[in-house]
Amino acid sequence: MPLTVLFPMPALWPEWQAPLTAALAEGGLDARLAPEADPATVDYIVYAPSSPLQDFTPYTRARAVLSLWAGVERIVGNETLTMPLCRMVDPALTEGMVEWVVGHALRHHLGMDRHIVNPGHVWDPTCPPLARERPVTILGLGELGAACGQALAALNFPVTGWSRTPKQVPGLTCLSGPEGLDRALSTAAILVTLLPRTPGTENILDARTLALLPEGAVILNPGRGALIDDEALLAALDAGRVGHATLDVFRVEPLPGDHPYWTHPRVTVTPHIAADTRTASAARVVAENIRRGEAGEPFLHRVDRVRGY
Amino acid sequence: MPLTVLFPMPALWPEWQAPLTAALAEGGLDARLAPEADPATVDYIVYAPSSPLQDFTPYTRARAVLSLWAGVERIVGNETLTMPLCRMVDPALTEGMVEWVVGHALRHHLGMDRHIVNPGHVWDPTCPPLARERPVTILGLGELGAACGQALAALNFPVTGWSRTPKQVPGLTCLSGPEGLDRALSTAAILVTLLPRTPGTENILDARTLALLPEGAVILNPGRGALIDDEALLAALDAGRVGHATLDVFRVEPLPGDHPYWTHPRVTVTPHIAADTRTASAARVVAENIRRGEAGEPFLHRVDRVRGY
Repeated sequence: MPLTVLFPMPALWPEWQAPLTAALAEGGLDARLAPEADPATVDYIVYAPSSPLQDFTPYTRARAVLSLWAGVERIVGNETLTMPLCRMVDPALTEGMVEWVVGHALRHHLGMDRHIVNPGHVWDPTCPPLARERPVTILGLGELGAACGQALAALNFPVTGWSRTPKQVPGLTCLSGPEGLDRALSTAAILVTLLPRTPGTENILDARTLALLPEGAVILNPGRGALIDDEALLAALDAGRVGHATLDVFRVEPLPGDHPYWTHPRVTVTPHIAADTRTASAARVVAENIRRGEAGEPFLHRVDRVRGY
Repeated sequence: MPLTVLFPMPALWPEWQAPLTAALAEGGLDARLAPEADPATVDYIVYAPSSPLQDFTPYTRARAVLSLWAGVERIVGNETLTMPLCRMVDPALTEGMVEWVVGHALRHHLGMDRHIVNPGHVWDPTCPPLARERPVTILGLGELGAACGQALAALNFPVTGWSRTPKQVPGLTCLSGPEGLDRALSTAAILVTLLPRTPGTENILDARTLALLPEGAVILNPGRGALIDDEALLAALDAGRVGHATLDVFRVEPLPGDHPYWTHPRVTVTPHIAADTRTASAARVVAENIRRGEAGEPFLHRVDRVRGY
């Protein structure tokens, strides 16, 4: 009998049906992908936060909930979700994130904006320092943070990585814990925030921590909007203490038209493009986890419900 | 008796005196650096195109002319220069070039300009393709071209490199010769020109070769202004055949205020900052070549006068 794989996101169905069907077939799985099904017959649930499905109680047979998103903060606290929950860790998502982070780090490092917009036709051949003279700090050393840190280190940026609990990433100076956070911020000419959203990371950049950054530091946030206290950041930008913020994620998306970020001269808004889930490669990750579930192998990227990611 | 090292560039003397003096001492050389000297007493000549020195005939004792620039086209044809001529290959120069090329390649790849300048506050979350889907071609596989190609390949860009004579660079698809040039251009979503300026490379991008590029290709020129036929490029930009050109070098520098490049909406001018010679590291290269000359070892980066670089 074929497996039943529920896809309870009507709005995403047109985009995902073909790649998921192809990936399940490619993985040699006898599976039926369905936008609706009798809960008692469902073997696996594919999930995104836009789903109307909030009560997992009737899905007594489901072996796992497989998120299409890397961030699972909107579902991890759901007490009816008692089966294994897996985050999406898509190799294409990591690649896209590395490209966005390295690209915007180099943009600020090279001072590109004053060449892209140069109405006065100013020819100022002052060279930027070399990357080896521009320290970068990355908050978060998960899959994405570690990959971005290593790509920046390969371009000679001195990279410090910070994580809540101690980690080692080759090529990076790794710090951890509350005291490590303060030290990591104090050297960050460029700061990249790639933490998951948890109660412990919300507003991790607030008035106190922003004040620890070197004068004129640049902030890149492709992680989660809630990592930043927006009022505190705007105050630091107004004062020129923070030189620029390039933000890809926001508490409300799309960013409302009257939000001060849109017009602030020291802010660049990018429209949540740093870490888009690519359907083809993400579908293969979903299929691989179903194959593992059926083979009795451990799931990839299973969420620790206590840590929250 | 100390060596006499002539530095015949009065305008550059204030900037170079300290780092060159330090590098000569660091290299254990008993040498006197001088902005002027009796030609018959000069052992080595440090050189930049701004020098008034054009007749090398009286420098009968000089063992080498050591250029502070990577490009030697303004001196290589000087028939009075009969001693060995060495180009500058500065590790810091290579690093700076890689940073400029990778930064602007990612800028165009990510479509950053429409986020940096977004007066309409448009939120369009359409993702760019991944780097692995964006082919880059590099013309020139010298020190700089090879380093840039490998840095782009490390970010997953498929990179084709072209050189006049066959070369192999790990990680790149390498083509050569006239037919190879046409093939290399035909796949270039992003084209980087890093050739030396020689009679054979002048106007290598002209109406014929520009027409071989894919529709909407982006050109990055951090090499030499003369590689591009400016009229042909402006026509291709006007027609939208070429999507954008980011140019760091020009036939006349600073770029004259009335040059159409300044105002063309598809052109970004950067003020010859991609490959600045950094005094400290370049001075060490000069000192190393003097040490080699005195030890009877082959010079680094000696120019082949027939090839012209």
